[in-house]
This record gives sequence, structure tokens and C-alpha cells, in this order.
Amino acid sequence: MVSTGVMTLPEGKKYLAISGGVGGAKLALGLSKLLSSEQLTIVANTGDDFSHMGLTICPDLDTVMYTLAELSNKELGWGQAGETWHFLDALEKLGGDTWFRLGDRDLATHLRRTQLLNSGLTLSEVTEIICKAIGIQHKIIPMSDDKIATQVHIDTGEKLAFQHYFVRDRCKPAVTGFEFEGIETAKASQVFVNAIEDEALACIIICPSNPFVSVDPVLKIRGIVSAMKDAAAPIIAVSPIVGGLAIKGPAAKMMKELGMPQSALAVAQHYKGRIDGFVIDKTDEATASDIEALGIKVLVCQTIMGSLEDRIDLAKNCISFSQELVSSQSSS
Amino acid sequence: MVSTGVMTLPEGKKYLAISGGVGGAKLALGLSKLLSSEQLTIVANTGDDFSHMGLTICPDLDTVMYTLAELSNKELGWGQAGETWHFLDALEKLGGDTWFRLGDRDLATHLRRTQLLNSGLTLSEVTEIICKAIGIQHKIIPMSDDKIATQVHIDTGEKLAFQHYFVRDRCKPAVTGFEFEGIETAKASQVFVNAIEDEALACIIICPSNPFVSVDPVLKIRGIVSAMKDAAAPIIAVSPIVGGLAIKGPAAKMMKELGMPQSALAVAQHYKGRIDGFVIDKTDEATASDIEALGIKVLVCQTIMGSLEDRIDLAKNCISFSQELVSSQSSS
Repeated sequence: MVSTGVMTLPEGKKYLAISGGVGGAKLALGLSKLLSSEQLTIVANTGDDFSHMGLTICPDLDTVMYTLAELSNKELGWGQAGETWHFLDALEKLGGDTWFRLGDRDLATHLRRTQLLNSGLTLSEVTEIICKAIGIQHKIIPMSDDKIATQVHIDTGEKLAFQHYFVRDRCKPAVTGFEFEGIETAKASQVFVNAIEDEALACIIICPSNPFVSVDPVLKIRGIVSAMKDAAAPIIAVSPIVGGLAIKGPAAKMMKELGMPQSALAVAQHYKGRIDGFVIDKTDEATASDIEALGIKVLVCQTIMGSLEDRIDLAKNCISFSQELVSSQSSS
Repeated sequence: MVSTGVMTLPEGKKYLAISGGVGGAKLALGLSKLLSSEQLTIVANTGDDFSHMGLTICPDLDTVMYTLAELSNKELGWGQAGETWHFLDALEKLGGDTWFRLGDRDLATHLRRTQLLNSGLTLSEVTEIICKAIGIQHKIIPMSDDKIATQVHIDTGEKLAFQHYFVRDRCKPAVTGFEFEGIETAKASQVFVNAIEDEALACIIICPSNPFVSVDPVLKIRGIVSAMKDAAAPIIAVSPIVGGLAIKGPAAKMMKELGMPQSALAVAQHYKGRIDGFVIDKTDEATASDIEALGIKVLVCQTIMGSLEDRIDLAKNCISFSQELVSSQSSS
């Protein structure tokens, strides 16, 4: 199914977006421009979270927050725009670890978050406070208030904490698999569960984030996939792979190392049984029939989001696609 | 005794300086320009230390360190030169406490210190690491590795943690007394004790710091005054009060509120029984005989340290004075 139809913006319907970092946050921003704060909930991966110098750092949550608050550093892809590095320069002189680039402004988020967590609040509550303080209207919530720590298994037989793999080692080690420490006992955050169970839910949108380390930690929380299936709303995912390349980050490199083809089709296969629809880029149009053969409906459109307009357009296309999925389900 | 004599710089002799913040650090810097790293140990008050946003902050220790590393902010009297405030601006937006002005560079010291303390090192060990990292040759040590927290009793009957009184409330409340929480059980740091007991010790110099909240916490640590008396070296103090005014900080205001005259003489009376010699400014020359009547020898010289030369001159005068005190003791 190739859809380019005109969409009627949904009123009263609710949307749940699942996001990792940069790519996911771009689509979340697009959705936030179309949907009211009542309509949209954005769940961020917290498997990347880690404790560094006593600070609780939540990279994906921060990227989503900074993107929606229009504070994000577009050049770096993380941290805040116009960031300065005086803290880090001084820390380097003191012999501190500087592999994780903590900007002066960004640091305030981590210190404030850590302080509020230490006062006994949950990460959901703290995130709500921070979002409100920086003027975000929409709900951004962590996938869980419990600690889930993504570990990257590498070809030496070792496992690396995600930020060590991702930032310190710049994704250089070859991956052999992933582990989400704590996921067996972690509970999904209440707002996340409520959003899935909401009767007004019209669609769950898995943003174009890394399937292995950004989306899987969210989906693998106990009860999440079954709750998503129980919901009447269709579940769609946007491919983070376009023309065999990852738009951002190590997804394609990981696929290669895991012995998978580096393609949108392989991502669809990875999500098979967990999604109803898949959004691929025009570049990958030829693969649409192979994906549909998996029992997954396909939308082909531009998925590369260079401009704000592109983000809004992709958001529109996702909403429209979900409406078509509902129509085709009810008519079949 | 009015001394202006020419001094021979002591070789092999050791000196122990006791310092609070700005004024004390100036004299400590002067001493460091005359004495080798083997000869000089500087003990800093840690009664001002406090935990803020999960960070262990040691204002006097930092002022002494930054002064000796020539990193200190001379305009502000605390923090680092050329400091920036991006962290604090961002923290303010997040609703965090900004009454304690944490500069971007300064913050690195607090985070690094806290991280090293949390790893199990003592404050003495951490201070040594930080001093070495910023190029300080001389030993700067905290008075204790145990927590001692200065509390300021005020006329409403409340007590305030020192930094709340000093920074947050800008010394406005009228003081009625002081309390050093934890001082009954705290031990002096080992390097401090070793310095007092060192047979080569030629003098203990109490720098021109606030007698009540910078020097008393040091002297009131169990065993310190008696160890100082047992040492053969003379103990001298430099008056922080000149012409009835405190060069810096609330010392004179406190004296007034405590019902004491605001004078160098009153400071000498406060130290009576604990010092052998007292250094006063030329402005207060007329009070010298009253101080000598307390059984305390007096040196009159310029004590206001506007320039680096002034700091070195005062340091020379203190060393020279201590040599005269030794000569007069051995000849008496």
C-alpha cells in the first residue's frame, strides 16, 4: 500500500510515540506540531541512562526534551544549542573523565535531575518538572522509573555499558548482541501504561530510532508488547534505515555485525509480529512488497527529516497511515 | 615590641599557616613565595564546608587552592578568574537553587572532589590530588577529614548553616554565637597534626581570617591548642581587624553583635592564651601597649595586602617576627 492521501487531523484521538535519541526526537517534534498536549505522549528509551560522576544522565530523554523545547544542538546531535565547555575544560585539568562531553548548560539538567531523584521523586515525576520548567507542553516520559541498563556484547566476549560503547568507544567494537540489565523486574512507567490502555488511543508510533538499543529496551519491558497488542490502535514503525544506511548512529553497522542485511526489510523482519504498519523511505520503495509479504502494511514516503517541515510531513504521513490501517482493518 | 628588622630567610625551618578564605589565602600566598614546598603547610578551615545539590563544597579550601594556583577571582573574592555562569543560568531555568553561585569552572572542582570522596578517599587525599592537578607545590590540607559544620546562632533563636548565613542571607542576621557541629568527635587531619609535632617547626601563623568562624573551628578541634602549646614554635596571629573594620567579611559586624569592641585589641583578647605574638596594622599602632599588657608580643607593620608585594612583605614580617620571638624566649 502506497499512501499519499490528504489527511484530516484527528480530534480527541490520542497518539503514543516511542523514541530513542535524535531521529526519534525529530519525528516526536513533528507530531508535537500537529497534536495537542492532550493527544500526544512521547515515551523515551532509558536503557542508555547511566550514572557518571554521581550524576544520573538520561541521554535519549534529554534529546527528546531538548528537541521539543527547541534547545537541542543540531550540529552535535546531543546537548544544548550554543553550549559552552568551561566545566569540562576545568575537569580535564583536574584529571576527571571527559569522554562524556558534559556542556555547561547540559550539566544543569543532570545535576537538577539527580538532586530531585535523590529527594525521592521518580524519574517520571522529575522529567515532568524539568519539561515544565523548559516550557514543554507535551508529555515526555521515561519508559520506566526502574533502572534498565543496556549492555552491548562485543566480539571480544566482553560487555560494555551502552555509553561506554556509544560515546567512549565511538561504536568501534563489533557487537554480538545486547542485554537489558534489570528488564526482568522493571515496570513500565505508569503514564506509559496508561497511554497504551487509553481507549482514545489511535496509534502507537515507533519512531525511526535504533531497533536494537533504542526501541527494543522499550518493547521488552514486561507486559508492553502484549498490552500494545491488546490495544485497538495500530502499531506502526518508521524505518531508521534508508537505502541501506542508518540516518544517524550505529544501526546499520550493528546489523552488519549481527549478520543481518542492512536494509529496511531487515528492520521490518526484526519488528515482525510487533507492528501492523511500516514506514519506509521512497529510496526503498522496491522493498515494499517484500515487507508486505511479512504481513506488515507499508507506507512509502520521504522519511529523511532535514527540515522542520519534513518532520511535520512525516508526522502527518504517520497519522494518515494509521487512519488508513484502522479503516482497512474495520473494512476487512 | 615594634619590629621592622631585616630578615634572614630560614632554611630547613618549617612553617604552619592556618587560614580561612580570602584574607588568609593572601598571606598564605605570600608565605608560599618565600618558603619551599617542604617548609610550608597551609591548613584550611573546613567548618564552612557544605553539601549542595549532592556536591561537597569546601569554600575556604578552594579559596586557598585557587589563590595559590593563581586561579582565584580577585573581583569576586571567591571562585575562579574569568568564570562563566552558563550552568547557573540553565539551573535557574530548571528551578534549581542559585543562591550559591557555582561557576562553570568552579563546578569541576566540586564534582571531581565529590566523585573522589565517594570513591572512598579522605578529604586530605582528595585535596592533594586536586592541588597537584592545578600545579600547587605547597601542602594545602583540610583541618580535618571529618565533618565539622559551623552553625551561626542568630538573634531570632534559630541557627543557620554557615553558607546559608554567609552567602544566602548575606550576613544580614545578627549573630549571638557559634557552634561547630561534629567538633567533639572530629580528629584533626594527620598532616596537620604532623606539622604541629614536626621538630623543625619554626612558627604557627594564624592568618588574618575571621577569628570566630574561620580560625576558631580549627583551634577547637580536640587536642589542637594543647599540641600547639606543646610545640616549641611560637604561635602568632595577624589581626583581621584594621582601624576597627574587617578588611573583608563579617568579622567586625559579628564583634559588634556579640557586644565586643570592633578592634584589633578585642581580637587579641579573643586569642589570649592561645598565641604568643600578634601582628597589627600601623593604623592600630596606638593599641600595641594594651595588647602587650595581655602578655602578647606585638608586631606593627602594614597588614593590608593590596598587591602581591604586600603579601610577600607581610609574610616576611611574620617570619621575622617569629624569629625575634624565639630569640627573646631563649634570651629570657
